[in-house]
Amino acid sequence: MLSKKSLYVVIVGCGRLGSFLANRMSSEGHGVVVIDNDETSFNALTLDYSGFKLVGDADEFAVLKKGRIDQADMVIAVTRDDNSNLMVSQIAKNIFHVPRVIARILDPKRGEIYRNLGIEIVCPTLIEYDYFTKLLEKPLSESGKGNEL
Amino acid sequence: MLSKKSLYVVIVGCGRLGSFLANRMSSEGHGVVVIDNDETSFNALTLDYSGFKLVGDADEFAVLKKGRIDQADMVIAVTRDDNSNLMVSQIAKNIFHVPRVIARILDPKRGEIYRNLGIEIVCPTLIEYDYFTKLLEKPLSESGKGNEL
Repeated sequence: MLSKKSLYVVIVGCGRLGSFLANRMSSEGHGVVVIDNDETSFNALTLDYSGFKLVGDADEFAVLKKGRIDQADMVIAVTRDDNSNLMVSQIAKNIFHVPRVIARILDPKRGEIYRNLGIEIVCPTLIEYDYFTKLLEKPLSESGKGNEL
Repeated sequence: MLSKKSLYVVIVGCGRLGSFLANRMSSEGHGVVVIDNDETSFNALTLDYSGFKLVGDADEFAVLKKGRIDQADMVIAVTRDDNSNLMVSQIAKNIFHVPRVIARILDPKRGEIYRNLGIEIVCPTLIEYDYFTKLLEKPLSESGKGNEL
């Protein structure tokens, strides 16, 4: 994942995806801070996770500063709330000039609007539509048992 | 999508994905029944949608029968509830012998267990993990603006 260089990554939201990314990037030797307003969400981090955990609302300036977002090489905003993800991303990009900012946006229409602000928008809804569209194009005999990752 | 033949498809759950699939399959000339326990969810269907709408809990036998699931070529279970999706899928497969049954399962561990029951399991969580893993392998200069579908 990423280049060889060890990066400093701030992950906002420690749900399924956030914890997956935090665990993975930490195991690959990157410096990781994961922020979530619910402390119990950190239970999804593995014992091997060697990054930091920060409890707080990531759309609050003080919390982001505490996470040293100004030094981040990358910010990944993956809370369940599109608004939070967009707000955090814009702060990261425009105020702290973080080189790479990725936001997960569930609402496809929303994603389209923010696509041109230097933020990488990932819309799982569109990914899912695309996946199903391809799946349904396959005849039954080839369809197998769904996605195998 | 699918073969040329017009199919009879029962879609359970009219959320973002369910309504997307219902609209799409209906526009492609397939016979569609969409089932949801919340009537307002049908607002996501387009004016062109020419299938049926059925209000009810799809894990109730009577509702599935009313949707003529016994005659379905395909059942797609995409409610927000993994349990409902698995229950409907098993009923469709084992009792009504529906040729093709697809269930969306959010919990990756759950998906694994049910993968071998003749049901196609689609796990968006795994699809999302995979997407992010690939995205993060790209250097910043190539990363563009996220998914474009």
